Amino acid sequence: MTRSQPPAVLSAVRDLVDRPLREAIDRLAPKIRRVAAYHFGWEEADGRPGNGGGKAVRSALAVLSAQAAGAPAAVGIPGAVAVELVHNFSLLHDDVMDGDEERRHRPTAWTVFGRSAALLAGDALLGLAFDVLLDAEHGDAAQRCLGSATQELIAGQFDDLDFETRLDVSLDECVSMAGAKTAALMACASSIGARLAGADPALVNALDDFGRHLGLAFQLVDDLLGIWGAPEVTGKPVGADLRARKKSLPVVAAMTSGTPAGEELRILYGGEKLHADADAHVVGLAAELVEAAGGRRWAMEEADRRLAAACAALDGVPVVPAAKTGLLDIARYVTSRDH
Amino acid sequence: MTRSQPPAVLSAVRDLVDRPLREAIDRLAPKIRRVAAYHFGWEEADGRPGNGGGKAVRSALAVLSAQAAGAPAAVGIPGAVAVELVHNFSLLHDDVMDGDEERRHRPTAWTVFGRSAALLAGDALLGLAFDVLLDAEHGDAAQRCLGSATQELIAGQFDDLDFETRLDVSLDECVSMAGAKTAALMACASSIGARLAGADPALVNALDDFGRHLGLAFQLVDDLLGIWGAPEVTGKPVGADLRARKKSLPVVAAMTSGTPAGEELRILYGGEKLHADADAHVVGLAAELVEAAGGRRWAMEEADRRLAAACAALDGVPVVPAAKTGLLDIARYVTSRDH
Repeated sequence: MTRSQPPAVLSAVRDLVDRPLREAIDRLAPKIRRVAAYHFGWEEADGRPGNGGGKAVRSALAVLSAQAAGAPAAVGIPGAVAVELVHNFSLLHDDVMDGDEERRHRPTAWTVFGRSAALLAGDALLGLAFDVLLDAEHGDAAQRCLGSATQELIAGQFDDLDFETRLDVSLDECVSMAGAKTAALMACASSIGARLAGADPALVNALDDFGRHLGLAFQLVDDLLGIWGAPEVTGKPVGADLRARKKSLPVVAAMTSGTPAGEELRILYGGEKLHADADAHVVGLAAELVEAAGGRRWAMEEADRRLAAACAALDGVPVVPAAKTGLLDIARYVTSRDH
Repeated sequence: MTRSQPPAVLSAVRDLVDRPLREAIDRLAPKIRRVAAYHFGWEEADGRPGNGGGKAVRSALAVLSAQAAGAPAAVGIPGAVAVELVHNFSLLHDDVMDGDEERRHRPTAWTVFGRSAALLAGDALLGLAFDVLLDAEHGDAAQRCLGSATQELIAGQFDDLDFETRLDVSLDECVSMAGAKTAALMACASSIGARLAGADPALVNALDDFGRHLGLAFQLVDDLLGIWGAPEVTGKPVGADLRARKKSLPVVAAMTSGTPAGEELRILYGGEKLHADADAHVVGLAAELVEAAGGRRWAMEEADRRLAAACAALDGVPVVPAAKTGLLDIARYVTSRDH
């Protein structure tokens, strides 16, 4: 993981999707819109302009997937907006369920507006996501993809929460959970533009596979950052994942490694030692155990394998070259990120 | 409000919609399906069969609205399923937000499965609602109606929660809130079948108006039952609405009446007197003040006016007579209910 700059395509697409996304949000009831605008980073809690939002990786994938099928970028935009809405619905709800108080270096919406307001804003974004696809040609195919990705995402979050209460989570279960929680929507983002373009099923499936592998690579890197990332870089408190006893991929790989360090980690997770007020020493010890048990190495290598599989998925199908370059740039960026 | 039997059309349509609704729920991930099946009353928490669910008023309205346009009942079924899904999404989420522990004489889903599980099940139902309309002819028109009703419903719940912290809620605001929270989905239910049938806009609008007036009449009666209904009849603890300081329609009508009793009620609501542990005496006093201030009378008369307006909405448009009879039977039943 070397320091890398965001590829130009990311900001180019963000400029393209920003207005339609804001227009969609502007259709919400004013009180709900305010919560959403705060969450997106467009406004501060008092209504002053904010510093902008996330990286909009999913938007870029959606627009590029339309271009990959030879359609103009505009064809992918409703898909980009819809996927961003579902993604942000899940962030709003997850932050409430997980009790996370910080995101993108700012207090989470529920800490500012209350749990109910954040939940309702999430509900509104989810409803809106299907709405923005209504007027698009091939919008039904896009909705179908978004609907099943949404169900996977919800089931993945269910499992993720469930894992927190279990010590017997297998690595397979954990990979399935991440596949559902993160990779399903990434697969939808990477193919929804092509679906809106009415592209050939072989291309749609290849783009879907690309996104699914990429989603898992992304989650692996995210989990690594959740343990070893600097707070000023991740926007989250140091060791937050370990404190919350998150059964993230490197942790489960370590726990199921059959090594003494893995066993020690399992005991540490099973005991009452890792509390919210656990000191840096205990969090540091957990991180060392993950590393000693090979969890860190496995996650890095698996991320590399998934990234390679993502790139390979685009071979042998007729992808417009410029779009392919953009997709690969994004894939490399989100799996090597140090922001 | 005299004792009344459910009209036959209600159980007839429930039999018709039960299977497609269960089939839709069966598509959910097993862990989520379990929460939904409990909520619908199909299963107990341990998986044993349940005693069945709600009255499915909205299903009946949806199917009858297809028949009102001369289409077979089957045309309305995807609309019935979609509307039930949105309705039950909102019940699952509202029960978490309101902290309600009982519904339909049973512990609410969040008290059994936890808050996150109930929220995720609600999310899943919302996503599914748009999905079930995808394959229907004129499904886009149905989705559009469902999407905007969902946004109204969410905004209505937002206002309802907001009102709990305010003492200056006007009757107009309260009627708008109820219109959004309850009547919007009832309007959608009453017209979605006709929309799926591709009916003439004049008929669609008349059915929508019917449902909107009916929704308000229904809410007024529900609010009256929330104060004066017997717990064995309503499935809720006695005086629950008053204990929660709900700004329900009769309460706000009383508070804004300009009468001494209304002023006393406002002081009672504003003070710290109406706690969860408030004794029956204080709850009884609040109910007496609502009555003395004319809130009960106003709500009963307004319910009658809204019921009349609902019925009148169907005059002057070509509604298939048998369907019209069914719609009016349901309208009279849900506004005179004592179940």
